[in-house]
Amino acid sequence: MDVPGYLLERIPLVERALDAAIPPADAPPAELHAAMRHLLFPGGKRLRPAFALAAAEAVGAPAERALPVATAIELIHTYSLIHDDLPCMDDDAERRGRPSVHVAYGEATAILAGDALQAAAFAAVLGAEGHDPARLVAAAGDIALAAGSLRLVGGQVADLAFAKSAGDAAHVESVHARKTAALFVAAVVGGARLGGADDATLARLSHCAENLGIAFQIADDLLDRGDDDVCSLVRVAGPEAARARGEALLGSALREIEALGTRAEPLQRLAEFAIWRNA
Amino acid sequence: MDVPGYLLERIPLVERALDAAIPPADAPPAELHAAMRHLLFPGGKRLRPAFALAAAEAVGAPAERALPVATAIELIHTYSLIHDDLPCMDDDAERRGRPSVHVAYGEATAILAGDALQAAAFAAVLGAEGHDPARLVAAAGDIALAAGSLRLVGGQVADLAFAKSAGDAAHVESVHARKTAALFVAAVVGGARLGGADDATLARLSHCAENLGIAFQIADDLLDRGDDDVCSLVRVAGPEAARARGEALLGSALREIEALGTRAEPLQRLAEFAIWRNA
Repeated sequence: MDVPGYLLERIPLVERALDAAIPPADAPPAELHAAMRHLLFPGGKRLRPAFALAAAEAVGAPAERALPVATAIELIHTYSLIHDDLPCMDDDAERRGRPSVHVAYGEATAILAGDALQAAAFAAVLGAEGHDPARLVAAAGDIALAAGSLRLVGGQVADLAFAKSAGDAAHVESVHARKTAALFVAAVVGGARLGGADDATLARLSHCAENLGIAFQIADDLLDRGDDDVCSLVRVAGPEAARARGEALLGSALREIEALGTRAEPLQRLAEFAIWRNA
Repeated sequence: MDVPGYLLERIPLVERALDAAIPPADAPPAELHAAMRHLLFPGGKRLRPAFALAAAEAVGAPAERALPVATAIELIHTYSLIHDDLPCMDDDAERRGRPSVHVAYGEATAILAGDALQAAAFAAVLGAEGHDPARLVAAAGDIALAAGSLRLVGGQVADLAFAKSAGDAAHVESVHARKTAALFVAAVVGGARLGGADDATLARLSHCAENLGIAFQIADDLLDRGDDDVCSLVRVAGPEAARARGEALLGSALREIEALGTRAEPLQRLAEFAIWRNA
Protein backbone atom coordinates (compact mmCIF):
# COMPACT_ATOMS: atom_id res chain seq x y z
CA MET A 1 0.00 0.00 0.00
CA ASP A 2 1.15 3.45 -1.03
CA VAL A 3 0.45 6.17 1.56
CA PRO A 4 0.62 9.23 -0.75
CA GLY A 5 -1.83 7.49 -3.10
CA TYR A 6 -4.10 6.62 -0.17
CA LEU A 7 -4.12 10.23 1.02
CA LEU A 8 -4.67 11.52 -2.51
CA GLU A 9 -7.85 9.47 -2.70
CA ARG A 10 -9.20 10.09 0.81
CA ILE A 11 -8.27 13.71 1.54
CA PRO A 12 -10.67 15.27 -1.02
CA LEU A 13 -13.52 13.70 1.00
CA VAL A 14 -12.21 15.50 4.07
CA GLU A 15 -11.79 18.80 2.21
CA ARG A 16 -15.39 18.68 1.00
CA ALA A 17 -16.71 17.83 4.46
CA LEU A 18 -14.71 20.68 6.03
CA ASP A 19 -15.99 23.11 3.43
CA ALA A 20 -19.58 22.05 4.11
CA ALA A 21 -19.08 22.47 7.88
CA ILE A 22 -18.37 26.23 7.70
CA PRO A 23 -20.58 28.88 6.07
CA PRO A 24 -19.12 30.44 2.88
CA ALA A 25 -16.54 33.19 3.34
CA ASP A 26 -19.03 35.83 2.13
CA ALA A 27 -21.88 34.76 4.45
CA PRO A 28 -22.42 37.39 7.17
CA PRO A 29 -20.57 38.06 9.36
CA ALA A 30 -18.21 37.77 6.36
CA GLU A 31 -15.09 38.77 8.27
CA LEU A 32 -15.71 36.02 10.83
CA HIS A 33 -16.28 33.33 8.21
CA ALA A 34 -13.21 34.45 6.24
CA ALA A 35 -11.16 34.26 9.46
CA MET A 36 -12.53 30.78 10.25
CA ARG A 37 -11.48 29.64 6.77
CA HIS A 38 -8.08 31.36 6.72
CA LEU A 39 -6.11 28.57 8.42
CA LEU A 40 -8.49 25.82 7.28
CA PHE A 41 -8.05 26.34 3.50
CA PRO A 42 -5.37 25.59 2.50
CA GLY A 43 -4.87 23.50 5.60
CA GLY A 44 -2.09 21.22 6.77
CA LYS A 45 -1.52 17.57 5.99
CA ARG A 46 -4.96 16.52 7.35
CA LEU A 47 -3.25 13.72 9.27
CA ARG A 48 -5.81 13.56 12.07
CA PRO A 49 -8.74 13.20 9.62
CA ALA A 50 -6.75 10.59 7.68
CA PHE A 51 -6.27 8.62 10.91
CA ALA A 52 -10.02 8.72 11.55
CA LEU A 53 -10.74 7.40 8.04
CA ALA A 54 -8.08 4.68 8.25
CA ALA A 55 -9.46 3.61 11.66
CA ALA A 56 -12.92 3.09 10.18
CA GLU A 57 -11.37 0.95 7.43
CA ALA A 58 -9.33 -0.94 10.05
CA VAL A 59 -12.59 -2.19 11.58
CA GLY A 60 -14.12 -3.09 8.23
CA ALA A 61 -16.19 0.01 7.40
CA PRO A 62 -15.90 2.35 4.40
CA ALA A 63 -13.64 5.34 5.09
CA GLU A 64 -16.59 7.71 4.57
CA ARG A 65 -18.24 6.49 7.77
CA ALA A 66 -15.60 8.35 9.79
CA LEU A 67 -16.07 11.72 8.05
CA PRO A 68 -18.13 13.39 10.83
CA VAL A 69 -15.38 12.63 13.37
CA ALA A 70 -12.59 13.47 10.91
CA THR A 71 -14.20 16.87 10.26
CA ALA A 72 -14.77 17.66 13.93
CA ILE A 73 -11.20 16.77 14.93
CA GLU A 74 -9.68 18.94 12.18
CA LEU A 75 -11.90 21.88 13.19
CA ILE A 76 -10.85 21.52 16.86
CA HIS A 77 -7.19 21.21 15.84
CA THR A 78 -7.52 24.36 13.70
CA TYR A 79 -9.19 26.41 16.46
CA SER A 80 -6.44 25.36 18.90
CA LEU A 81 -3.71 26.52 16.48
CA ILE A 82 -5.43 29.90 16.03
CA HIS A 83 -5.62 30.45 19.80
CA ASP A 84 -2.07 29.08 20.39
CA ASP A 85 -0.68 31.66 17.93
CA LEU A 86 -2.20 34.65 19.80
CA PRO A 87 0.18 37.30 21.20
CA CYS A 88 -0.63 36.32 24.81
CA MET A 89 0.15 32.62 24.06
CA ASP A 90 2.96 31.58 21.68
CA ASP A 91 2.87 34.93 19.80
CA ASP A 92 3.45 33.47 16.33
CA ALA A 93 2.89 35.91 13.48
CA GLU A 94 3.08 33.18 10.82
CA ARG A 95 1.73 29.68 10.38
CA ARG A 96 2.40 27.47 7.34
CA GLY A 97 4.05 30.37 5.55
CA ARG A 98 1.07 32.72 5.84
CA PRO A 99 0.08 35.40 8.39
CA SER A 100 -1.55 33.98 11.52
CA VAL A 101 -5.27 34.61 11.84
CA HIS A 102 -4.80 37.40 14.43
CA VAL A 103 -2.27 39.13 12.14
CA ALA A 104 -4.64 38.92 9.18
CA TYR A 105 -7.92 39.69 11.00
CA GLY A 106 -7.10 41.15 14.41
CA GLU A 107 -7.10 39.55 17.83
CA ALA A 108 -10.81 39.79 18.60
CA THR A 109 -11.81 38.15 15.33
CA ALA A 110 -9.13 35.45 15.77
CA ILE A 111 -10.44 34.55 19.24
CA LEU A 112 -14.03 34.50 18.00
CA ALA A 113 -13.10 32.50 14.88
CA GLY A 114 -11.52 29.88 17.17
CA ASP A 115 -14.59 29.86 19.40
CA ALA A 116 -16.89 29.38 16.42
CA LEU A 117 -14.69 26.63 14.95
CA GLN A 118 -15.02 24.68 18.20
CA ALA A 119 -18.81 25.01 18.03
CA ALA A 120 -18.74 24.03 14.33
CA ALA A 121 -16.81 20.88 15.23
CA PHE A 122 -19.61 19.68 17.49
CA ALA A 123 -22.27 20.75 14.99
CA ALA A 124 -20.48 18.68 12.31
CA VAL A 125 -20.43 15.45 14.27
CA LEU A 126 -23.87 15.90 15.87
CA GLY A 127 -25.49 16.82 12.55
CA ALA A 128 -24.23 13.67 10.79
CA GLU A 129 -26.96 11.67 9.07
CA GLY A 130 -27.28 7.91 8.83
CA HIS A 131 -25.43 7.08 12.05
CA ASP A 132 -26.61 5.31 15.19
CA PRO A 133 -27.38 8.15 17.66
CA ALA A 134 -25.74 6.26 20.55
CA ARG A 135 -22.48 6.07 18.58
CA LEU A 136 -22.70 9.77 17.71
CA VAL A 137 -23.22 10.64 21.39
CA ALA A 138 -20.20 8.56 22.38
CA ALA A 139 -17.96 9.93 19.60
CA ALA A 140 -18.93 13.56 20.23
CA GLY A 141 -18.59 13.03 24.00
CA ASP A 142 -15.07 11.65 23.50
CA ILE A 143 -14.21 14.71 21.39
CA ALA A 144 -15.57 17.04 24.10
CA LEU A 145 -13.39 15.35 26.73
CA ALA A 146 -10.35 15.33 24.41
CA ALA A 147 -10.79 19.08 23.80
CA GLY A 148 -11.28 19.91 27.49
CA SER A 149 -9.33 21.08 30.53
CA LEU A 150 -7.87 17.66 31.34
CA ARG A 151 -6.64 16.98 27.79
CA LEU A 152 -6.07 19.49 24.90
CA VAL A 153 -6.54 22.76 26.80
CA GLY A 154 -4.81 21.40 29.91
CA GLY A 155 -1.88 20.36 27.71
CA GLN A 156 -1.60 23.87 26.28
CA VAL A 157 -1.58 25.31 29.84
CA ALA A 158 1.17 22.86 30.85
CA ASP A 159 3.09 23.63 27.65
CA LEU A 160 2.95 27.40 28.32
CA ALA A 161 4.11 26.79 31.92
CA PHE A 162 6.89 24.41 30.89
CA ALA A 163 9.63 27.02 30.39
CA LYS A 164 9.28 27.95 34.07
CA SER A 165 9.19 24.38 35.39
CA ALA A 166 11.86 21.72 35.76
CA GLY A 167 10.12 18.95 33.86
CA ASP A 168 11.60 15.49 33.31
CA ALA A 169 10.87 13.06 30.47
CA ALA A 170 7.73 11.72 32.14
CA HIS A 171 6.37 15.25 32.50
CA VAL A 172 7.15 16.02 28.84
CA GLU A 173 5.27 12.88 27.75
CA SER A 174 2.30 13.82 29.92
CA VAL A 175 2.15 17.20 28.16
CA HIS A 176 2.41 15.49 24.73
CA ALA A 177 -0.32 13.03 25.76
CA ARG A 178 -2.67 15.91 26.52
CA LYS A 179 -1.71 18.53 23.94
CA THR A 180 -1.09 16.21 20.97
CA ALA A 181 -2.22 12.64 21.59
CA ALA A 182 -5.71 13.51 22.89
CA LEU A 183 -6.93 14.50 19.41
CA PHE A 184 -5.20 11.48 17.80
CA VAL A 185 -7.07 9.23 20.22
CA ALA A 186 -10.40 10.96 19.58
CA ALA A 187 -9.81 10.71 15.80
CA VAL A 188 -8.86 7.01 15.79
CA VAL A 189 -11.38 5.86 18.41
CA GLY A 190 -14.12 8.07 16.94
CA GLY A 191 -13.46 6.85 13.41
CA ALA A 192 -13.57 3.23 14.55
CA ARG A 193 -16.67 3.91 16.63
CA LEU A 194 -18.60 5.28 13.66
CA GLY A 195 -17.23 2.27 11.73
CA GLY A 196 -19.03 -0.03 14.18
CA ALA A 197 -16.11 -1.28 16.31
CA ASP A 198 -16.77 -3.20 19.53
CA ASP A 199 -15.55 -1.98 22.93
CA ALA A 200 -12.48 -4.23 23.09
CA THR A 201 -11.25 -2.94 19.72
CA LEU A 202 -11.92 0.66 20.80
CA ALA A 203 -9.86 0.15 23.97
CA ARG A 204 -6.99 -1.33 21.95
CA LEU A 205 -7.12 1.55 19.43
CA SER A 206 -7.24 4.13 22.21
CA HIS A 207 -4.02 2.84 23.75
CA CYS A 208 -2.39 2.56 20.35
CA ALA A 209 -3.37 6.10 19.26
CA GLU A 210 -2.05 7.60 22.50
CA ASN A 211 1.36 6.05 21.79
CA LEU A 212 1.17 7.23 18.18
CA GLY A 213 0.31 10.78 19.23
CA ILE A 214 3.25 10.98 21.64
CA ALA A 215 5.59 9.47 19.01
CA PHE A 216 4.30 12.02 16.49
CA GLN A 217 5.15 14.90 18.82
CA ILE A 218 8.61 13.47 19.55
CA ALA A 219 9.31 13.13 15.80
CA ASP A 220 8.09 16.69 15.26
CA ASP A 221 10.42 17.98 17.98
CA LEU A 222 13.39 16.11 16.43
CA LEU A 223 13.00 18.39 13.39
CA ASP A 224 12.93 21.58 15.38
CA ARG A 225 15.80 21.88 17.85
CA GLY A 226 16.06 25.65 18.06
CA ASP A 227 14.17 26.72 21.13
CA ASP A 228 15.57 25.91 24.56
CA ASP A 229 12.33 26.78 26.33
CA VAL A 230 10.18 24.33 24.44
CA CYS A 231 8.57 21.32 26.11
CA SER A 232 10.29 18.48 24.25
CA LEU A 233 11.91 15.15 24.93
CA VAL A 234 14.80 16.24 22.70
CA ARG A 235 15.55 19.02 25.17
CA VAL A 236 15.25 17.02 28.40
CA ALA A 237 16.70 13.66 27.20
CA GLY A 238 18.75 14.50 24.08
CA PRO A 239 18.05 13.57 20.44
CA GLU A 240 19.26 9.94 20.60
CA ALA A 241 17.11 9.04 23.59
CA ALA A 242 14.17 10.92 22.06
CA ARG A 243 14.49 9.05 18.77
CA ALA A 244 14.73 5.70 20.56
CA ARG A 245 11.65 6.49 22.63
CA GLY A 246 9.70 7.57 19.54
CA GLU A 247 10.64 4.33 17.79
CA ALA A 248 9.61 2.25 20.80
CA LEU A 249 6.22 3.97 21.02
CA LEU A 250 5.63 3.60 17.28
CA GLY A 251 6.69 -0.06 17.40
CA SER A 252 4.26 -0.79 20.21
CA ALA A 253 1.44 0.98 18.32
CA LEU A 254 2.21 -0.89 15.09
CA ARG A 255 2.06 -4.26 16.87
CA GLU A 256 -1.38 -3.40 18.25
CA ILE A 257 -2.59 -2.34 14.79
CA GLU A 258 -1.21 -5.57 13.26
CA ALA A 259 -3.48 -7.58 15.51
CA LEU A 260 -6.46 -6.08 13.64
CA GLY A 261 -5.50 -7.96 10.48
CA THR A 262 -4.88 -6.95 6.87
CA ARG A 263 -7.73 -4.44 6.64
CA ALA A 264 -5.75 -2.35 9.16
CA GLU A 265 -2.90 -1.96 6.68
CA PRO A 266 -3.84 1.64 5.72
CA LEU A 267 -3.80 2.60 9.43
CA GLN A 268 -0.45 0.86 9.91
CA ARG A 269 1.20 2.47 6.87
CA LEU A 270 -0.28 5.87 7.75
CA ALA A 271 1.15 5.61 11.28
CA GLU A 272 4.66 4.90 9.97
CA PHE A 273 4.34 7.65 7.37
CA ALA A 274 2.99 10.28 9.78
CA ILE A 275 5.71 9.76 12.32
CA TRP A 276 8.84 9.27 10.23
CA ARG A 277 7.80 11.31 7.17
CA ASN A 278 10.50 13.91 7.82
CA ALA A 279 12.38 12.83 10.92
CA MET B 1 -46.89 30.45 41.79
CA ASP B 2 -44.04 32.31 43.46
CA VAL B 3 -40.97 32.75 41.22
CA PRO B 4 -38.37 33.38 43.94
CA GLY B 5 -39.59 30.24 45.73
CA TYR B 6 -39.45 28.28 42.46
CA LEU B 7 -35.88 29.39 41.83
CA LEU B 8 -34.89 28.71 45.43
CA GLU B 9 -35.95 25.09 44.95
CA ARG B 10 -34.59 24.50 41.43
CA ILE B 11 -31.33 26.47 41.35
CA PRO B 12 -29.46 24.22 43.84
CA LEU B 13 -29.91 21.37 41.33
CA VAL B 14 -28.23 23.54 38.70
CA GLU B 15 -25.41 24.55 41.06
CA ARG B 16 -24.65 20.91 41.83
CA ALA B 17 -24.69 19.94 38.16
CA LEU B 18 -22.38 22.84 37.26
CA ASP B 19 -19.99 21.88 40.03
CA ALA B 20 -19.90 18.27 38.81
CA ALA B 21 -19.23 19.41 35.22
CA ILE B 22 -15.87 21.07 36.02
CA PRO B 23 -12.89 19.42 37.78
CA PRO B 24 -12.19 20.75 41.30
CA ALA B 25 -10.23 24.02 41.54
CA ASP B 26 -7.17 22.16 42.85
CA ALA B 27 -7.11 19.50 40.10
CA PRO B 28 -4.14 20.05 37.76
CA PRO B 29 -3.79 22.34 35.90
CA ALA B 30 -5.07 24.07 39.06
CA GLU B 31 -4.79 27.60 37.69
CA LEU B 32 -6.93 26.65 34.68
CA HIS B 33 -9.62 25.02 36.80
CA ALA B 34 -9.65 27.93 39.25
CA ALA B 35 -10.04 30.32 36.29
CA MET B 36 -12.88 28.21 34.84
CA ARG B 37 -14.65 28.39 38.21
CA HIS B 38 -13.98 32.08 38.87
CA LEU B 39 -17.02 33.48 37.02
CA LEU B 40 -19.08 30.31 37.47
CA PHE B 41 -19.15 30.32 41.31
CA PRO B 42 -20.72 32.51 42.49
CA GLY B 43 -22.52 32.88 39.20
CA GLY B 44 -25.34 35.10 38.02
CA LYS B 45 -29.07 34.57 38.32
CA ARG B 46 -28.94 31.23 36.43
CA LEU B 47 -31.90 32.40 34.33
CA ARG B 48 -30.99 30.33 31.27
CA PRO B 49 -30.79 27.07 33.28
CA ALA B 50 -34.04 27.99 35.03
CA PHE B 51 -35.72 28.40 31.62
CA ALA B 52 -34.49 24.94 30.59
CA LEU B 53 -35.93 23.39 33.77
CA ALA B 54 -39.24 25.23 33.46
CA ALA B 55 -39.49 24.14 29.80
CA ALA B 56 -39.18 20.46 30.81
CA GLU B 57 -41.96 21.00 33.35
CA ALA B 58 -44.04 22.81 30.73
CA VAL B 59 -44.15 19.60 28.68
CA GLY B 60 -44.94 17.40 31.68
CA ALA B 61 -41.48 16.13 32.70
CA PRO B 62 -39.69 16.60 36.04
CA ALA B 63 -37.38 19.67 36.03
CA GLU B 64 -34.35 17.39 36.58
CA ARG B 65 -34.68 15.95 33.06
CA ALA B 66 -33.45 19.27 31.65
CA LEU B 67 -30.30 19.46 33.79
CA PRO B 68 -27.82 18.35 31.07
CA VAL B 69 -29.04 21.14 28.79
CA ALA B 70 -29.29 23.66 31.64
CA THR B 71 -25.67 22.93 32.59
CA ALA B 72 -24.36 23.14 29.04
CA ILE B 73 -26.10 26.45 28.32
CA GLU B 74 -24.78 28.07 31.52
CA LEU B 75 -21.23 26.88 30.70
CA ILE B 76 -21.47 28.32 27.16
CA HIS B 77 -22.91 31.58 28.53
CA THR B 78 -20.04 31.79 31.06
CA TYR B 79 -17.33 31.14 28.45
CA SER B 80 -18.83 33.84 26.22
CA LEU B 81 -18.76 36.39 29.06
CA ILE B 82 -15.09 35.58 29.81
CA HIS B 83 -14.11 36.09 26.16
CA ASP B 84 -16.34 39.21 25.79
CA ASP B 85 -14.55 40.85 28.73
CA LEU B 86 -11.06 40.47 27.17
CA PRO B 87 -9.06 43.64 26.45
CA CYS B 88 -9.36 43.15 22.66
CA MET B 89 -13.17 42.81 22.95
CA ASP B 90 -15.23 44.86 25.43
CA ASP B 91 -12.24 45.38 27.77
CA ASP B 92 -14.17 45.03 31.02
CA ALA B 93 -12.01 44.72 34.13
CA GLU B 94 -14.94 43.81 36.36
CA ARG B 95 -17.95 41.52 36.10
CA ARG B 96 -20.58 41.12 38.84
CA GLY B 97 -18.49 43.22 41.25
CA ARG B 98 -15.37 41.04 40.97
CA PRO B 99 -12.27 41.17 38.75
CA SER B 100 -12.81 39.69 35.28
CA VAL B 101 -11.13 36.36 34.65
CA HIS B 102 -8.31 37.93 32.57
CA VAL B 103 -7.62 40.47 35.34
CA ALA B 104 -7.48 37.72 37.98
CA TYR B 105 -5.63 35.05 35.93
CA GLY B 106 -4.08 36.76 32.88
CA GLU B 107 -5.24 36.82 29.29
CA ALA B 108 -3.85 33.46 28.15
CA THR B 109 -5.51 31.59 31.01
CA ALA B 110 -8.78 33.48 30.48
CA ILE B 111 -8.89 32.52 26.78
CA LEU B 112 -8.06 28.89 27.61
CA ALA B 113 -10.59 28.80 30.47
CA GLY B 114 -13.27 29.94 28.02
CA ASP B 115 -12.18 27.34 25.48
CA ALA B 116 -12.32 24.58 28.09
CA LEU B 117 -15.73 25.74 29.37
CA GLN B 118 -17.13 25.38 25.85
CA ALA B 119 -15.76 21.83 25.65
CA ALA B 120 -17.12 21.09 29.15
CA ALA B 121 -20.57 22.24 28.01
CA PHE B 122 -20.69 19.58 25.31
CA ALA B 123 -19.19 16.96 27.63
CA ALA B 124 -21.95 17.73 30.15
CA VAL B 125 -24.84 17.21 27.76
CA LEU B 126 -23.27 14.28 25.87
CA GLY B 127 -22.30 12.50 29.10
CA ALA B 128 -25.84 12.60 30.50
CA GLU B 129 -27.16 9.21 31.59
CA GLY B 130 -30.69 7.88 31.24
CA HIS B 131 -31.63 9.89 28.15
CA ASP B 132 -32.65 8.76 24.67
CA PRO B 133 -29.45 9.14 22.56
CA ALA B 134 -31.39 10.62 19.64
CA ARG B 135 -32.72 13.39 21.91
CA LEU B 136 -29.22 14.05 23.29
CA VAL B 137 -27.83 14.31 19.74
CA ALA B 138 -30.57 16.79 18.80
CA ALA B 139 -30.20 18.87 21.97
CA ALA B 140 -26.39 19.00 21.78
CA GLY B 141 -26.58 19.74 18.05
CA ASP B 142 -28.94 22.66 18.72
CA ILE B 143 -26.51 23.98 21.33
CA ALA B 144 -23.60 23.71 18.86
CA LEU B 145 -25.55 25.73 16.27
CA ALA B 146 -26.67 28.28 18.89
CA ALA B 147 -23.04 28.75 19.99
CA GLY B 148 -21.70 29.05 16.44
CA SER B 149 -20.80 31.65 13.84
CA LEU B 150 -24.38 32.26 12.70
CA ARG B 151 -25.77 32.73 16.23
CA LEU B 152 -23.86 33.51 19.50
CA VAL B 153 -20.39 34.21 18.06
CA GLY B 154 -21.84 35.95 14.99
CA GLY B 155 -23.90 38.15 17.33
CA GLN B 156 -20.79 39.13 19.27
CA VAL B 157 -19.03 40.06 16.01
CA ALA B 158 -22.04 42.18 14.96
CA ASP B 159 -22.18 43.74 18.44
CA LEU B 160 -18.49 44.72 18.32
CA ALA B 161 -19.00 46.19 14.83
CA PHE B 162 -22.17 48.07 15.80
CA ALA B 163 -20.52 51.29 16.99
CA LYS B 164 -19.11 51.75 13.48
CA SER B 165 -22.35 50.91 11.66
CA ALA B 166 -25.58 52.80 11.18
CA GLY B 167 -27.96 50.12 12.43
CA ASP B 168 -31.71 50.54 12.64
CA ALA B 169 -34.16 48.78 14.98
CA ALA B 170 -34.36 45.67 12.78
CA HIS B 171 -30.57 45.39 12.80
CA VAL B 172 -30.47 45.78 16.60
CA GLU B 173 -33.04 43.01 16.98
CA SER B 174 -31.07 40.73 14.67
CA VAL B 175 -28.01 41.22 16.87
CA HIS B 176 -30.09 40.52 20.01
CA ALA B 177 -31.53 37.41 18.34
CA ARG B 178 -28.05 36.04 17.77
CA LYS B 179 -26.11 37.28 20.78
CA THR B 180 -28.83 36.82 23.43
CA ALA B 181 -31.84 34.88 22.16
CA ALA B 182 -29.88 31.98 20.62
CA LEU B 183 -28.98 30.57 24.05
CA PHE B 184 -32.51 31.19 25.39
CA VAL B 185 -33.87 29.17 22.47
CA ALA B 186 -31.35 26.35 22.99
CA ALA B 187 -32.18 26.29 26.72
CA VAL B 188 -35.97 26.21 26.31
CA VAL B 189 -36.07 23.90 23.28
CA GLY B 190 -33.34 21.64 24.74
CA GLY B 191 -35.09 21.43 28.12
CA ALA B 192 -38.39 20.54 26.45
CA ARG B 193 -36.63 18.07 24.15
CA LEU B 194 -35.11 16.16 27.06
CA GLY B 195 -38.55 16.40 28.67
CA GLY B 196 -39.99 14.41 25.74
CA ALA B 197 -41.77 17.18 23.77
CA ASP B 198 -43.06 16.51 20.25
CA ASP B 199 -41.85 18.49 17.23
CA ALA B 200 -44.86 20.84 17.08
CA THR B 201 -44.34 21.86 20.72
CA LEU B 202 -40.60 22.34 20.12
CA ALA B 203 -41.32 24.63 17.14
CA ARG B 204 -43.76 26.68 19.24
CA LEU B 205 -41.27 26.95 22.12
CA SER B 206 -38.45 27.93 19.76
CA HIS B 207 -40.42 30.88 18.41
CA CYS B 208 -41.54 31.86 21.89
CA ALA B 209 -38.00 31.70 23.36
CA GLU B 210 -36.59 33.83 20.55
CA ASN B 211 -39.11 36.57 21.40
CA LEU B 212 -38.33 36.17 25.10
CA GLY B 213 -34.59 36.45 24.49
CA ILE B 214 -34.96 39.66 22.48
CA ALA B 215 -37.34 41.09 25.10
CA PHE B 216 -34.82 40.17 27.83
CA GLN B 217 -32.07 42.10 26.05
CA ILE B 218 -34.33 45.12 25.51
CA ALA B 219 -35.26 45.15 29.22
CA ASP B 220 -31.59 44.85 30.15
CA ASP B 221 -30.72 47.81 27.93
CA LEU B 222 -33.51 49.90 29.50
CA LEU B 223 -31.58 49.69 32.80
CA ASP B 224 -28.29 50.76 31.31
CA ARG B 225 -28.53 53.94 29.26
CA GLY B 226 -24.98 55.22 29.63
CA ASP B 227 -23.09 54.14 26.57
CA ASP B 228 -23.89 55.78 23.23
CA ASP B 229 -21.95 53.17 21.26
CA VAL B 230 -23.89 50.20 22.50
CA CYS B 231 -26.10 48.13 20.22
CA SER B 232 -29.50 48.73 21.82
CA LEU B 233 -33.06 49.50 20.84
CA VAL B 234 -33.08 52.21 23.54
CA ARG B 235 -30.38 54.03 21.59
CA VAL B 236 -31.84 53.69 18.10
CA ALA B 237 -35.57 54.01 18.94
CA GLY B 238 -35.72 55.73 22.36
CA PRO B 239 -36.80 54.28 25.73
CA GLU B 240 -40.58 54.49 25.17
CA ALA B 241 -40.50 52.64 21.87
CA ALA B 242 -38.05 50.11 23.30
CA ARG B 243 -40.29 49.43 26.29
CA ALA B 244 -43.36 49.05 24.05
CA ARG B 245 -41.50 46.62 21.79
CA GLY B 246 -40.25 44.59 24.77
CA GLU B 247 -43.80 44.38 26.12
CA ALA B 248 -45.17 43.28 22.75
CA LEU B 249 -42.55 40.54 22.40
CA LEU B 250 -43.15 39.33 25.97
CA GLY B 251 -46.93 39.38 25.43
CA SER B 252 -46.62 37.30 22.28
CA ALA B 253 -44.35 34.80 24.07
CA LEU B 254 -46.71 34.56 27.07
CA ARG B 255 -49.67 33.79 24.81
CA GLU B 256 -47.73 30.94 23.20
CA ILE B 257 -46.78 29.54 26.61
CA GLU B 258 -50.39 29.79 27.80
CA ALA B 259 -51.42 27.43 25.03
CA LEU B 260 -49.36 24.70 26.75
CA GLY B 261 -51.79 24.66 29.72
CA THR B 262 -51.38 24.97 33.47
CA ARG B 263 -48.21 22.90 33.75
CA ALA B 264 -46.49 25.71 31.79
CA GLU B 265 -47.21 28.17 34.59
CA PRO B 266 -43.61 28.09 35.95
CA LEU B 267 -42.31 28.93 32.46
CA GLN B 268 -44.84 31.73 32.12
CA ARG B 269 -44.12 33.28 35.53
CA LEU B 270 -40.37 32.90 34.99
CA ALA B 271 -40.62 34.71 31.64
CA GLU B 272 -42.44 37.67 33.23
CA PHE B 273 -40.00 37.72 36.16
CA ALA B 274 -36.85 37.49 34.01
CA ILE B 275 -37.86 40.31 31.74
CA TRP B 276 -39.43 42.83 34.08
CA ARG B 277 -37.57 41.91 37.29
CA ASN B 278 -35.80 45.28 37.37
CA ALA B 279 -37.02 47.30 34.43
